[in-house]
Amino acid sequence: MTTSIPQPTRPAAHLDALEAAQSTPAQARRLFHDGLVAPTTGWAAGFTQANLVMLPQDWAFDMLLFGQRNPRPVPLLDVTDPGATSSTLAPDADLRTDVPRYRVWRHGELVDEPTDVTDLWRNDLVTFLIGCSFSFETALLDAGVPVRNLEQGRNVSMYRTNTQCRPAGRLAGPLVVSMRPIPAAQVVTAVQVTARMPQVHGAPVHVGAPEALGIADLSTPDYGDPVHPHPGDVPTFWACGVTPQAALMASRPPFAITHAPGHMFITDVPDVAYRQP
Amino acid sequence: MTTSIPQPTRPAAHLDALEAAQSTPAQARRLFHDGLVAPTTGWAAGFTQANLVMLPQDWAFDMLLFGQRNPRPVPLLDVTDPGATSSTLAPDADLRTDVPRYRVWRHGELVDEPTDVTDLWRNDLVTFLIGCSFSFETALLDAGVPVRNLEQGRNVSMYRTNTQCRPAGRLAGPLVVSMRPIPAAQVVTAVQVTARMPQVHGAPVHVGAPEALGIADLSTPDYGDPVHPHPGDVPTFWACGVTPQAALMASRPPFAITHAPGHMFITDVPDVAYRQP
Repeated sequence: MTTSIPQPTRPAAHLDALEAAQSTPAQARRLFHDGLVAPTTGWAAGFTQANLVMLPQDWAFDMLLFGQRNPRPVPLLDVTDPGATSSTLAPDADLRTDVPRYRVWRHGELVDEPTDVTDLWRNDLVTFLIGCSFSFETALLDAGVPVRNLEQGRNVSMYRTNTQCRPAGRLAGPLVVSMRPIPAAQVVTAVQVTARMPQVHGAPVHVGAPEALGIADLSTPDYGDPVHPHPGDVPTFWACGVTPQAALMASRPPFAITHAPGHMFITDVPDVAYRQP
Repeated sequence: MTTSIPQPTRPAAHLDALEAAQSTPAQARRLFHDGLVAPTTGWAAGFTQANLVMLPQDWAFDMLLFGQRNPRPVPLLDVTDPGATSSTLAPDADLRTDVPRYRVWRHGELVDEPTDVTDLWRNDLVTFLIGCSFSFETALLDAGVPVRNLEQGRNVSMYRTNTQCRPAGRLAGPLVVSMRPIPAAQVVTAVQVTARMPQVHGAPVHVGAPEALGIADLSTPDYGDPVHPHPGDVPTFWACGVTPQAALMASRPPFAITHAPGHMFITDVPDVAYRQP
């Protein structure tokens, strides 16, 4: 860890965005391990961030099947053996401590949002690491497409839709989408760039017309922060890795742990590893 | 079924290749349902064929995880609910009767090769349908790349390699590859064409040098038929959906059903559905 990296005691609101972007995955995880809480958008630029779901083995088949059947919102990057506390995507990381904020679910109810889940750990927990749209934000920027949530220093806006996922065993629930306002002249570029990254949600599922997805008001997202469009921006929607959380709320397994929306697990895998030629 | 389709009592060796190619998926499955036994290479041209694995639910998580961890040899196209006898890939088909030949495994030993598994059916069986390289043969032909096994009216050659898959729970085993002799000047085209179809094994895993995969003699494949190269052909290897069968032999679950190599489940899904733009 170099001295240019913000210290854990520094409030998230005061983080320098450039410092966060320039941190390595290991440096970022160390800060989160030590208690820093911040949305990870823009952090460790160029490295893949992942949504996280931990479930007892009894529910793991249903979750794995849910991912297999809903690859747009639930692209599975890695699934651990039961009880494993690390992943091949970041072998030195501790899955129980290195996410900035977790959510703990009991029977579908959110009961806690700790920064460490070591004391809740069980040897039957299987961890699912799921691709995140933050990974393609780098690719959008590389292609000259502005990313408004990064410009505004905010968590991306996420919404529950009126579209249902394909159920799997006991798991069912609505598709959750992330939204980015894209300049109308660059929507095609945004589609082309993200279509080449199917493991991190791929192409948008919907362009414009939020009401067709059952979204009444873009300024009140179900998860994350409101992001302000510029004149001429078109709301563009991608399948979102928070979808499994909505399924957990609907399907009520006795116990589950997830990341808090926008507070992702940062892996050691470069985003380019998930870009198709 | 039209009169141009071969009748079930007609021996497979006498099938007209053009008639087989022109059959619809439903027509082909009806013939297999009625007892015809034939390798499905070249059948129902343009429609996706799938490898099949059926396992008791107790082993289904391991198999699903094996696929998630080994997407090149085990690209999962659909996974059924326990006890389901049909798949979304071909809703009108019966998974127990519509494959030309099955294999029945007990504790890792091949015990039977029936043409129907209705009498072996159990309500805890989960069916895995796995992409098959036959799907990209159409794409190769479209690109002007000859497919020698089709030219020679033979099942593709398949080999066990010295490369191990990433284990998942109780499942482990070697990578199995299919081999096609490709004219040296067209190897690049073959790579480019198949790379765009990751759900049906994607790009080759290896070009030339069979000894580097532990294959001593191309003329004696472990599965399928020998296929004769033309002068100037290069042996080109793709990950193969028979890989799960090798894992079942190595890992010895109490009970499993698979297709017989080369005798695939023909789906209603056009191959183009798995071609990326």
